[in-house]
Amino acid sequence: MVYIGIDVGGTGLKAGVVDENGKILSKVSCPTGVERGHEAVIADMAQLALKAVAEAGLTIDDVKSVGIGIPGIQDPAREIVPFCTNLYWHEVPLVQLMKKVIDKPIFVGNDATVAGLAESVAGVSAGVKDSVFLTIGTGVGGGIVLGGKVYDGVHGVGSELGHMIICVDGEMCTCGNRGCWERYASATALINMGKKALTEHPDSLIGKDGADNISAKTVIDAAKAGDKVALEVYDKYIYYLCAGIVSIINFIDPEMIVIGGGVSAAGDFLLNAIRAKLPSMIFYKAMPYASIELATLGNDAGIIGAAMLGK
Amino acid sequence: MVYIGIDVGGTGLKAGVVDENGKILSKVSCPTGVERGHEAVIADMAQLALKAVAEAGLTIDDVKSVGIGIPGIQDPAREIVPFCTNLYWHEVPLVQLMKKVIDKPIFVGNDATVAGLAESVAGVSAGVKDSVFLTIGTGVGGGIVLGGKVYDGVHGVGSELGHMIICVDGEMCTCGNRGCWERYASATALINMGKKALTEHPDSLIGKDGADNISAKTVIDAAKAGDKVALEVYDKYIYYLCAGIVSIINFIDPEMIVIGGGVSAAGDFLLNAIRAKLPSMIFYKAMPYASIELATLGNDAGIIGAAMLGK
Repeated sequence: MVYIGIDVGGTGLKAGVVDENGKILSKVSCPTGVERGHEAVIADMAQLALKAVAEAGLTIDDVKSVGIGIPGIQDPAREIVPFCTNLYWHEVPLVQLMKKVIDKPIFVGNDATVAGLAESVAGVSAGVKDSVFLTIGTGVGGGIVLGGKVYDGVHGVGSELGHMIICVDGEMCTCGNRGCWERYASATALINMGKKALTEHPDSLIGKDGADNISAKTVIDAAKAGDKVALEVYDKYIYYLCAGIVSIINFIDPEMIVIGGGVSAAGDFLLNAIRAKLPSMIFYKAMPYASIELATLGNDAGIIGAAMLGK
Repeated sequence: MVYIGIDVGGTGLKAGVVDENGKILSKVSCPTGVERGHEAVIADMAQLALKAVAEAGLTIDDVKSVGIGIPGIQDPAREIVPFCTNLYWHEVPLVQLMKKVIDKPIFVGNDATVAGLAESVAGVSAGVKDSVFLTIGTGVGGGIVLGGKVYDGVHGVGSELGHMIICVDGEMCTCGNRGCWERYASATALINMGKKALTEHPDSLIGKDGADNISAKTVIDAAKAGDKVALEVYDKYIYYLCAGIVSIINFIDPEMIVIGGGVSAAGDFLLNAIRAKLPSMIFYKAMPYASIELATLGNDAGIIGAAMLGK
């Protein structure tokens, strides 16, 4: 038996057929076209899934289940997606609509959560008992896998790790609170820190492509090049990142914390900085704690993880 | 079959015999006498346990297991208590020493963790799938129960909820980090906030027993009495408390969060304040989230929870 995984993004839909080891057998994609409304998008998702099955040389009888990763959550009690900001969805009966076309067990998960599941089946955290996945990009998303299964809480609202509060009375967050982790540890936060530093130190390498073209990569590259101002920004950013990582360790003490998302492209420069900072911040300093690793599946994690929801 | 539970504190030892429903059948106690060293203390623990069995009118053959709650942790990989500050223990083979006297399965858990387990067996969270227990006193301790079982992490260093960082660059903590939750949400924190406020507003009811006699109760009583300064302090304290509670909800989304420890003596005044503040801080505002409740087992939680480690 194989599993269909569908990765729903604000701009593109991807569907793939995945075997029980998390290997992709086929994958296809198309634009999302959110402006057409949820029924048209879900109809396309179903057709895309069937196309992926055909491309793998299989039939629907070979499929055990369909998993869907969305940039939001499903209310597990009602099997309704209450809202999905990027898709303009509100109270969408995703499972019900999908089942009309593909009458198989349908599973729905948050995109960061399924990416974490993918890593734990076929990526860096394969074989790891309990892991936490972080996707560090525009925001900070989280996925928790305990004993090989997604853990997203009793009401399905858990693993929103970017919204742990790490700075009471701090920066205003889109969620209405102040001081959420993603205000400090996302690529967006790093960019804002870089912009502020450039204003104060106009000669910094951070500004080499112009003040309007600062990305997380610009700041990180400037730090890599030894720019003093960029290194100070980066060091502070790593501290903010570690504040949340330490909270995760002190909370659920996973075996591994996996870092994905845009900022993880910094590779060893990121990993080494986190690993160097953590030991002084760990509570039980003489005890072993989670290893910190980079995600390995990249963009395929969405399809693989969604598919593995049904495993 | 029955279960022995031993509650190890810095000043007193308690042991009890507990049935499978978490009901205490007998309990006995004696001073800890930490200055005598761990071997003497553990020998006393074993004798106290045997005394509790006799007092329940049972024999050791009726006992299924022995559970021990300590103000620290055990390294699960080595079955060693690496350190226990209040007991002056360092690298203590607790299980091995206890087993020499009572040859039954021996389980060791953190005191806050076992109190959480007790509540989930015989207290307010009985029947609840996933719960988080908070003991708010000198510090803030945490216990996580998932699916009826203690969850304390892969290396046994989890559920140190008082050391989630809620204020980067904030107050210095004994653990070496800045901004740990217990620096803001413990009774100690409330007392410090009360003292500071009294310095600025010497007429506040907070000082009615003198500036040197401020307790969490003094501040809370002054707030209950409508003292404006005390109410401001209390409101800020509740915000700090909720910052951590919201982080817990956004992280693992439990069914219930149970509040115990000294500060929980404030009862409904505390509960109502938390429940009033939370809705505006919740991430998924339209979704159900954890109920917040007061612990019900009080001092018996230590014995019951330790005993239930073997269930």
